[in-house]
Amino acid sequence: MGSKFRLALVQMSVVLSKSENISHATRLVGEAAAKGANMVALPELFVTPCSPGLMKKAAEPLMGETIQALREAARKSRIYLIGGTIVEQEGEKRYNTCNVIDPEGELIASYRKLHAFDVDLPPNLRIVESETFARGYRLTTFDTPICRVGLSICYDIRFPEMTLLYGQKGCKLVFMAGAFNNVTGPAHWEAILRTRAVDQQMYIAAASPARDLKSPYVTWGHSMIVNPWGEILAQAEFDEEIIMADIDMKVLETVRRQMPLYAHKRNDVYRTDDISPKQ
Amino acid sequence: MGSKFRLALVQMSVVLSKSENISHATRLVGEAAAKGANMVALPELFVTPCSPGLMKKAAEPLMGETIQALREAARKSRIYLIGGTIVEQEGEKRYNTCNVIDPEGELIASYRKLHAFDVDLPPNLRIVESETFARGYRLTTFDTPICRVGLSICYDIRFPEMTLLYGQKGCKLVFMAGAFNNVTGPAHWEAILRTRAVDQQMYIAAASPARDLKSPYVTWGHSMIVNPWGEILAQAEFDEEIIMADIDMKVLETVRRQMPLYAHKRNDVYRTDDISPKQ
Repeated sequence: MGSKFRLALVQMSVVLSKSENISHATRLVGEAAAKGANMVALPELFVTPCSPGLMKKAAEPLMGETIQALREAARKSRIYLIGGTIVEQEGEKRYNTCNVIDPEGELIASYRKLHAFDVDLPPNLRIVESETFARGYRLTTFDTPICRVGLSICYDIRFPEMTLLYGQKGCKLVFMAGAFNNVTGPAHWEAILRTRAVDQQMYIAAASPARDLKSPYVTWGHSMIVNPWGEILAQAEFDEEIIMADIDMKVLETVRRQMPLYAHKRNDVYRTDDISPKQ
Repeated sequence: MGSKFRLALVQMSVVLSKSENISHATRLVGEAAAKGANMVALPELFVTPCSPGLMKKAAEPLMGETIQALREAARKSRIYLIGGTIVEQEGEKRYNTCNVIDPEGELIASYRKLHAFDVDLPPNLRIVESETFARGYRLTTFDTPICRVGLSICYDIRFPEMTLLYGQKGCKLVFMAGAFNNVTGPAHWEAILRTRAVDQQMYIAAASPARDLKSPYVTWGHSMIVNPWGEILAQAEFDEEIIMADIDMKVLETVRRQMPLYAHKRNDVYRTDDISPKQ
């Protein structure tokens, strides 16, 4: 793979039927791979529309039908597959979980969303994610031959500590499975994603479900890949679309050489630590 | 003052003559106060164009002529005056220093830039700030009857640790005395300022010198006041201008109630600390 790989984000339409969503997702993953992607990422909750009742209905154990289908898709196309998120059931608890499959079809990372989106936004967007999901308790990365990748889910990206720590851990790409909405999308989506990239001089990639105006939760779409200088390399609008861009370590190294933010950090004045409980 | 105060940013033109710059600055401060500002802020290095030779020539002790003129201006107008930055000489060292004067004319805060802008940007922007300035070694805030304010200077704003820590310390406004340029301005200025405001749910205000196309360092201008939802309340273009906006705790509290980012932080997973050396 040299210094770079090709990343595809699948901004897919999500329907009521979970099995239809899974087969649609694996079809789109195959399509992205056929177009040359080495890594393909699905959006947050691609298995179900985002309403509490439907999310609960879509719950499954970690190694359930969705992961099995994704493992098969990754193996078939010989790609890294970041499987958006599923509704993971473990005992009495549900988690919003992002799973990563390697080109051999093995599950190599599993990240449970850290931050619960409990908000009350005007005009009438009241969401209490913590009624549906428990929260995870650790940052999660995985390694590829080209670079380390950090995982985040939607609301997580509002907490700069996460990308700070992923930067410290050597990540060159942070993926966000996201579903911003009509209120937060136009207000913040692009500025936050671009600034995270600029701050850590890393690639940022965010995959959203396509917009469905009949859904109880209307997502913003605008899946996006941003380079370490904060430039938008590829961007979807509202509809279903596969977008692609190269994640290139040479570009990243050039940016870091021209403006050595990491060397300029004042680690004698401030410090951000990962204090997640050890397993 | 109730729940709010009126902040003015002076995007002033800087000329070769230091004494002219000082008298021009105090005149503009008076003008902003006459228009109703309770706090007025000047840009980075308003005393001299940004070239190493000229900056060295403009050096003076902390309590030198510039501060004396600013103290007089603040007292006369009964305002808080954030005095952009001066070239502070202390022994053999020079600092890029932002000083704050209260309405009684007393110096209440003095912040030395923490991060040295040593970069080599295409096409031909090579700057080695550390050849001119030593670096400070602590974050600095000051209190007003309405809120606490944090101080930062230009390149500092690229390090999210600073606004994170200012948020932790209870700041509701972070001021940045900045002078981005033709390359970094269009690429990053707005996205970074808006995202810092959104992340910490605070006001961000950045004051730049006006653009001078004949200067050795052509600044970006675009002085800006952003509210805690990331909206730009006031913005200059390239030329000399005074911009104003209300810094309103009610707006800030509404944003923090609607989306309680601070309550949602995972302080069991990550932590950012101020470890600056104690004096």
